[in-house]
Amino acid sequence: MAAYVASGGDFNRDTDYITTRITADGRDGYPVEPGRYRLIVARACPWANRAIIVRRLLGLEDAISIGFCGPTHDADSWTFDLDPGGVDPVLKISRLKDAYLKRFPDYPKGITVPASVDVRTGEVVTNDFAQITLDFSTEWTAYHRDGAPDLYPEPLRDEIDEVSRRVYTEVNNGVYRCGFAGSQQAYERAYDRLFAALDWLSERLRNQRYLVGDTITEADVRLFTTLVRFDAVYHGHFKCNRHKLTELPVLWAYARDLFQTPGFGDTVDFVQIKQHYYIVHRDINPTGIVPKGPELSGWLTPHGRESLGGRPFGDGTPPPPPRESERVPAGHGAG
Amino acid sequence: MAAYVASGGDFNRDTDYITTRITADGRDGYPVEPGRYRLIVARACPWANRAIIVRRLLGLEDAISIGFCGPTHDADSWTFDLDPGGVDPVLKISRLKDAYLKRFPDYPKGITVPASVDVRTGEVVTNDFAQITLDFSTEWTAYHRDGAPDLYPEPLRDEIDEVSRRVYTEVNNGVYRCGFAGSQQAYERAYDRLFAALDWLSERLRNQRYLVGDTITEADVRLFTTLVRFDAVYHGHFKCNRHKLTELPVLWAYARDLFQTPGFGDTVDFVQIKQHYYIVHRDINPTGIVPKGPELSGWLTPHGRESLGGRPFGDGTPPPPPRESERVPAGHGAG
Repeated sequence: MAAYVASGGDFNRDTDYITTRITADGRDGYPVEPGRYRLIVARACPWANRAIIVRRLLGLEDAISIGFCGPTHDADSWTFDLDPGGVDPVLKISRLKDAYLKRFPDYPKGITVPASVDVRTGEVVTNDFAQITLDFSTEWTAYHRDGAPDLYPEPLRDEIDEVSRRVYTEVNNGVYRCGFAGSQQAYERAYDRLFAALDWLSERLRNQRYLVGDTITEADVRLFTTLVRFDAVYHGHFKCNRHKLTELPVLWAYARDLFQTPGFGDTVDFVQIKQHYYIVHRDINPTGIVPKGPELSGWLTPHGRESLGGRPFGDGTPPPPPRESERVPAGHGAG
Repeated sequence: MAAYVASGGDFNRDTDYITTRITADGRDGYPVEPGRYRLIVARACPWANRAIIVRRLLGLEDAISIGFCGPTHDADSWTFDLDPGGVDPVLKISRLKDAYLKRFPDYPKGITVPASVDVRTGEVVTNDFAQITLDFSTEWTAYHRDGAPDLYPEPLRDEIDEVSRRVYTEVNNGVYRCGFAGSQQAYERAYDRLFAALDWLSERLRNQRYLVGDTITEADVRLFTTLVRFDAVYHGHFKCNRHKLTELPVLWAYARDLFQTPGFGDTVDFVQIKQHYYIVHRDINPTGIVPKGPELSGWLTPHGRESLGGRPFGDGTPPPPPRESERVPAGHGAG
């Protein structure tokens, strides 16, 4: 069985990703080129969920195809078990690991999503999740849809980076630090850090609709993917249980506001999210039983955040509904 | 490691208790007699919590002494690890099991609390938790305090029994049926049954302050001990997570009303409750890490149920504060 719990102390995320970038100038050997790359994701995964959201907000569907791994995986690799025959129809592989090994035959590290794969060679290009979405915003501009929002506006980048850094260490990764703590002390420290950060965010968002500026930015995407999983998995499975998100009025309204914004909630598959965490982490959930709760209909209730002003898409427009082949299955959302 | 999860299907509670009764007429050989019996409990345990509450409401402290086991136990027995030297000062034993074996040398079943022990012989008399509290109410009347409430009034016994039966199968035991289910299917059936019952209770209590009649009865005691543990353990640990109790407005107000009534909340030790479940059931919580949440201060907020009328203690009065030696330690309550 794969071990997720840190032995004896603090959980530390291995952050050594493949840092090759796909850029407009192709300086790493991978130039922006429509149709050339396939974004491999899993709806379950919060890091991949960022890329799903940003690709959709920017309208990159025609430029960058997408492949969905199933919610669960073994210790070895994410797999394409949702596809007919368990094989990705474009890459023709059954395990994402194959794309990693194609480029690095002795690849020693975790096989993670999101990952961008060069379709021509079948080789992984990058799994550097934090850079992938920024490059979607800044390197792929020639292929953005009409009305695409600017998720990483130049004048706000320092602030977005600063907020995102804290959100990353304290919240995105903070929930894992709670769940995979290897001792009572390490867990309690992690819990205090997490909720201190959520209190800070509640304060910041009390009178301000979005995290930075008055429009949706990369910072909101990054916070959203953790908040949307909070009550479904982190609260119980990771023992992040001072409060449910539904009990934190500012953050709950903020999260619902984003959830109800085209491009956010329509990417969220709660069934896959719950299956992933509860089935994969057998060292904290040995039975593999997946909770039937929580009740999700609250996600669709009025949030009242419009009264704070803000222009969700700035000078742009919301994305159209997801294309048929990329829709979350009926019954897997909050409806 | 002790196994709590049912292998492959539904959890079934072993309900074969020692049915000897302590009665006014002494027909089972154990007559009511002040000072003769010692009630052994653990604050962690919901079945024992009933007996702690009823003994206190009725003012039986002088007639029946009490011994507290620690929150955790091994597969063998509850133990007196809270006492100096780990030995009950009256029974002079370290394991509750010793009192069971004293009477039944080959006792083959689980060592449970609450248990009444005959102090003179050191033998267990009964562990039949459902009968113990009823006998406190009906057989020990000569030793009730002045102003003791009637928790099991004759004209309402049929209704109390009927409500209690449903509360027992669907709620008191229903949470365990969720937590110890041995398959996804068994768990989901259990979850549906539990929340159907909680919805029924919400309806029943919407315009009625207590479960039966207009005063606190045995039925309320029995429901309370499960509700008070709901968010602290059952919601996460047993996956009873459609909603937290705090999200069920009627039941949450009802539970707070009781919690704030002398004799209820002052018997509740949240620290021991959480330690018990999360440390003992290693087959569903292998790390043994105890959640730091939930935030408990909500238990002390106004509940507004006075507007429904009702006479908490009927023609009686509230009990005085717990005696010094029986107080929940500071920091273990909701304060």
